[in-house]
Amino acid sequence: MEKYLINAQERVDKLHIHGLNIIQNQDFFRYGTDAVLLSWYAAGKINRKLKVADLGTGSGIIPILLSLSKAGEIHGLELQPHVADMAKRSVEMNSLTPKITIIQGDVRELPEFFLPNTYDMVVSNPPYMNAKEGFKNIKDTVAVSRHELQCTMKDIAFAAKRLLKTKGRFVLVHRPNRIVDIFYEMRLHNIEPKAMILIKPKKSKEANMVIIEGLKEGKPGLKILPDIVVYEEDGSYTKQILEIYGKESS
Amino acid sequence: MEKYLINAQERVDKLHIHGLNIIQNQDFFRYGTDAVLLSWYAAGKINRKLKVADLGTGSGIIPILLSLSKAGEIHGLELQPHVADMAKRSVEMNSLTPKITIIQGDVRELPEFFLPNTYDMVVSNPPYMNAKEGFKNIKDTVAVSRHELQCTMKDIAFAAKRLLKTKGRFVLVHRPNRIVDIFYEMRLHNIEPKAMILIKPKKSKEANMVIIEGLKEGKPGLKILPDIVVYEEDGSYTKQILEIYGKESS
Repeated sequence: MEKYLINAQERVDKLHIHGLNIIQNQDFFRYGTDAVLLSWYAAGKINRKLKVADLGTGSGIIPILLSLSKAGEIHGLELQPHVADMAKRSVEMNSLTPKITIIQGDVRELPEFFLPNTYDMVVSNPPYMNAKEGFKNIKDTVAVSRHELQCTMKDIAFAAKRLLKTKGRFVLVHRPNRIVDIFYEMRLHNIEPKAMILIKPKKSKEANMVIIEGLKEGKPGLKILPDIVVYEEDGSYTKQILEIYGKESS
Repeated sequence: MEKYLINAQERVDKLHIHGLNIIQNQDFFRYGTDAVLLSWYAAGKINRKLKVADLGTGSGIIPILLSLSKAGEIHGLELQPHVADMAKRSVEMNSLTPKITIIQGDVRELPEFFLPNTYDMVVSNPPYMNAKEGFKNIKDTVAVSRHELQCTMKDIAFAAKRLLKTKGRFVLVHRPNRIVDIFYEMRLHNIEPKAMILIKPKKSKEANMVIIEGLKEGKPGLKILPDIVVYEEDGSYTKQILEIYGKESS
């Protein structure tokens, strides 16, 4: 058995994909289907050595999954020092340096490491809830990952605009009830929403996630792509989801 | 047989709903499923004597269908004099004066008849295509109905904001590729998109229409309602559409 440097409350989870592993902390926000679907969609748009930034990278799950694509450099930005440190150790554990670089810093004041107008793609799985939704403690690590306490949709759109080259892509996963905020802020920041996929837990249920792709300085015109359904009515994964997970591991 | 005053190229079409009829001109833009679905959705929100405006009323189909709801006054605005004249004759033919009033005028310079901040609901089935899309002749009646030559989404959102009371509803039907424009202009004009229904010709096809409901000075938060599918795979109407048409006629 290999040994990894992990802290109390942390554990090493196998991704069951190319032997990749990730360190997660049971007290922090852990990655979910949203991060996997975002990575799958983004990977489908990476057909050469693109330079990619992940805003609010958390455990580093998205850079780690995107390392399997043709992406060149992948830079993950994470605000919370103890979360960024964990992501760095996951990158090292998977021997993904220097392809992936994790930087601790604030989306609202991008660290100098992130050079403006140099990125082909910006991805993000940002906090879903606005600061007013639900109960939270501002000092709580999970709350910062879930709520727009330290980073709003406006902040992320502003950062994406700054980082992307002309015609660079911005891909994010969010909640459907926030679509208006996302479209509004993207267009305000000269990133035109071009494609949207609604993700439903079951065919008979309302969508609970959405993937949105924008193009910096793109022309108006939205394409609604077919819905993704995660579970069959009996609770097993759909063929589509198995294929997506399968593609990641093939 | 009753006799109606109709012009050359015009015909009287039966709506098969409560014995209503409508005059249409074979050379003009004729109403479709979009107008019927918009009227059905809007009627579902009219639970008392609301004051309603229809921007770009065309043949008057929407006011005529909404006359079956609990709506109080319904005011239709139409730019093209020969189209407005035809709508007025349809209203008279159905003995729907004074419940419905058709006014000839420009959405961009609302006639004085339309008093600001007095409407409970504004509906619209506006031109779907922006001025750059496809080929058209600026003098052509059909082109004015289809393309944003004389009236853009911004003009309509501005007029809706002006007409609506606080918490008044704006309901429109449009094409899915214009959703970003609609959300952006609505929010810019202080009408918050609250609900959206995608309409698909068949279950296996992409949506080709969308109904959007906004609330003047509403709080952010979009609800995506279940899709409406128009046709079964064999080309017959779905049960849902038959029910919608049935409800109109019951």
